[in-house]
Amino acid sequence: MFDEKLLMTPGPTMIPTRVLEIMRRQIIHHRTDNYERSFDELCENLKLVFQTKSTVMTFVSSGTGVMEAAVVNLFSPGDKVLAVSIGAFGDRFSEIAQVFGLDVQKFAVPWGEPAAPEAVREILDADREHKIKAVLITHNETSTGVTNDIKAVAALTKDTDRLLVVDAISSLGALDLKMDEWGIDVVVTCSQKALMNAPGLGFAAASEKAWAAYEKAKLPKFYWDFKKYRNGILKQSENPPYTPAISLVLAQNEAVKILLEEGLETVYARHKQAALAAQAGVAALGLSLLPEQKNSSFVITAVRPPEGIEIGKIIKDMNVSYDVMVVGGQKSLKGKLLRIGHCGYFNRFDLIKTFAALEMSLQKAGYRFEPGVSLAAVQKAFI
Amino acid sequence: MFDEKLLMTPGPTMIPTRVLEIMRRQIIHHRTDNYERSFDELCENLKLVFQTKSTVMTFVSSGTGVMEAAVVNLFSPGDKVLAVSIGAFGDRFSEIAQVFGLDVQKFAVPWGEPAAPEAVREILDADREHKIKAVLITHNETSTGVTNDIKAVAALTKDTDRLLVVDAISSLGALDLKMDEWGIDVVVTCSQKALMNAPGLGFAAASEKAWAAYEKAKLPKFYWDFKKYRNGILKQSENPPYTPAISLVLAQNEAVKILLEEGLETVYARHKQAALAAQAGVAALGLSLLPEQKNSSFVITAVRPPEGIEIGKIIKDMNVSYDVMVVGGQKSLKGKLLRIGHCGYFNRFDLIKTFAALEMSLQKAGYRFEPGVSLAAVQKAFI
Repeated sequence: MFDEKLLMTPGPTMIPTRVLEIMRRQIIHHRTDNYERSFDELCENLKLVFQTKSTVMTFVSSGTGVMEAAVVNLFSPGDKVLAVSIGAFGDRFSEIAQVFGLDVQKFAVPWGEPAAPEAVREILDADREHKIKAVLITHNETSTGVTNDIKAVAALTKDTDRLLVVDAISSLGALDLKMDEWGIDVVVTCSQKALMNAPGLGFAAASEKAWAAYEKAKLPKFYWDFKKYRNGILKQSENPPYTPAISLVLAQNEAVKILLEEGLETVYARHKQAALAAQAGVAALGLSLLPEQKNSSFVITAVRPPEGIEIGKIIKDMNVSYDVMVVGGQKSLKGKLLRIGHCGYFNRFDLIKTFAALEMSLQKAGYRFEPGVSLAAVQKAFI
Repeated sequence: MFDEKLLMTPGPTMIPTRVLEIMRRQIIHHRTDNYERSFDELCENLKLVFQTKSTVMTFVSSGTGVMEAAVVNLFSPGDKVLAVSIGAFGDRFSEIAQVFGLDVQKFAVPWGEPAAPEAVREILDADREHKIKAVLITHNETSTGVTNDIKAVAALTKDTDRLLVVDAISSLGALDLKMDEWGIDVVVTCSQKALMNAPGLGFAAASEKAWAAYEKAKLPKFYWDFKKYRNGILKQSENPPYTPAISLVLAQNEAVKILLEEGLETVYARHKQAALAAQAGVAALGLSLLPEQKNSSFVITAVRPPEGIEIGKIIKDMNVSYDVMVVGGQKSLKGKLLRIGHCGYFNRFDLIKTFAALEMSLQKAGYRFEPGVSLAAVQKAFI
C-alpha cells in the first residue's frame, strides 16, 4: 500500500532513524582524523558486542564474503574441517570450504533440528589423530529458525588444537555469544541483521589460536587478508588497507552505540521475549513451529503453514495489502514455511502488527480462527 | 573550519544531494519487485557507462575486491600475464596476480609516465608462443596523475587470443572508455569515483572472450564468482546471489541517472576542461606537473611542490583552514606531490575554490606569487 514496509525478515532489518540520518550526510574522506576517530570508536564498541578482547575487523562485504574470508585466512588446501550444517547457511559454509579445496567432513542434521553437541563430540572423539583442524558452525540458522548451542560446542574445541569458526551473521547483537569466555576462535557477522545497519559491511574477529593458524595458512588471499585489516586498526600500516564503505561505517558506529545504550543484556532479553510472544501467537492460531519449541530461535520464528493454504500467497498479501514483510522457506523448505524475523531494530508493537497482518491474510485465504486471538496471545506474552 | 569538506580527492568524491537523499530512506528488502526494478534499471544504465552490451555485475566490494575478482575468474595458477604498471595501482594489480599464483611478467615504467603502446607491442611480439594470456593495465593511475592509452593497447589484443583486463576504477564515467568498440575484455570499477556514490560497490563487465576464459579458469572462487552475479541479473537464478548493499545500489541508480542526464560526452568534456584549467592554474603559480602535460590525467592533476616547501603542511592547512581536501603522494612519491582530484560530482567553482585555498596556504608557507594569479588562469581556461 505504502512505499515503506515493516521488514520482519531475517535481514535486511529496519534501520533506526539516527542511523539513516548519518547515511544522509555528505561523504568524508577516510584518511582523516574525523573518520579515524569514528572508526576507532566503532572498533572498540564492536569488541563489546563480540565479547572479545581481539581486534574486530571491518570489510566491505556481504555476510558470505566474510565466511569466505574466514576460510582463506585459516586454512591450506587439503586441511580437514568438520562442517556442521543445520540448514541453508550451514550448507553454504560447507560449500565454501569445499570450493577452496579443504577436506570437508560434513555433519548435517535434518532441517528444523539443532546439532547435538554430543554428536559433534563423538565425531571429534573418533578423529583420534586430530586430522580435523576446525569446526565450522552456524550460530543461528535463519533458514530453519533454529539456534545451535555454541557454548557447548565451544567446550569441545576450547582447550584443544582445533579451531571453532562461528557464522554469527544473524545472531551477533541479538543472541548472547561470549567469544572469549566460551573460547570461540573466529566469529563472522555483518551489518544488516541485529547490528541495525544497511547491508554492505562484514565483520570478523579472530582469537590468538586463530592468528597462529593464519600464519600457517597457505590459501592465497589479498582482499580478505585479515592481517592487513588488523594492522590498519592497530596503526601498524595504512588505516584502512582499501577504501572502506565510509557512509556505512559511520552509520554502523551510530547503530552500535544505540545497541550499547539499550544494553546488550536488555537487547538479548528483548529478542527472547519477542520470540516467546511470536511462539504464543503461532500456537494461538493453531499453527506449529518447524523446530521443537525449545530449539526455536530468538531472532526468527519458522512457522508451518496451515494445511491447504498456499503460504506464498499469504506472504505476498501481507506485503502488498499491509506493508509487512515476512519471508517463506528456502531450498527444500520452499512453500513449506512462513518465517517471521524479530531481529535488530524492532519492538513489541511491530510484532503485534505482524500478527494482525498475518491474521488478516490468513482469514482472506479461508483459514478460520477467532479474530484477534494471536494478538491477545502476543500481548499476554509481553506482560 | 566546518564539518563539511570539499573533497578534491581521487576518491571518495562528493555525492550529489539527490543521491544522499536516497541513502536516507528506510531500507527495503532486496527480494522485492521494487528493488529489482531499480537494480535492473541500474544494470541497463551501467551498460551505457561501460559502453558495452555485456552484463555489468555489481558486488559488495571496494575497488581492490573487483580487481581480485577479475583475476580469480579469468585465470588458473601458473597462467602467464603481462602486468603493465605505471604507478601504485598498477603495482597492486600485479601483486594480486602474483598472490594468486599467476606467472606475472611485469612491465613497469617510471612513475609519471604512461605505458607506451609500442613498448607493450614489442613485449607481446616477443612472446611468439603466446604464453602471455592477458594484459592487466590501469586506465587512469591516480598515484601519478597519468592516463594510459587503452585504445592503443586494446588494438594489440583485440583480434588475438589474449585478454585485456582494465582497472578503470578512477576513470569510468569520467574518461571515455569504449569497452566493446575498442575490444576490452574485462573492465572493473567502483562506486566512489566518477560514479558519484559512496564507497562500497564494485562493478565488473566481461566480454564473450573473457567468459570463455572463465570456463577454463581453475582458481577457486565463491564470493567473487562472476557467473552467479550474471545469472542473478539474467534471472537464471536467485537475484542476487548474496544480500546486496541495498542502500548503495539504490543510490547508485540515482547517481548513474544524473550522469546520463548530463550526458557522457558532456561529462567527459567537463573533466577535460577542468584538467586543462587546473594545469593552467599550476603553471600560473610557477609550479610543474609530475607528468608531461600531454600525459596528464583529466581526473587528477599531480603537482610537484615548490622547492623548500613542505607539501604535507600545505595539504593539511588547505583542509584545516579552508575545508578543501586534496591529497599528497603515495609510496615513493610521499612528500613529493600534491594531487588535486577533479573527478565525478564537481564543477568549475569547486576548482576555483581549490586554487584559492591552495594560494592561501602557499602564501602562508612563504611561497610568493601574485595573489589570484592561478584563479585568473583557471577562470580563463574555463571561458
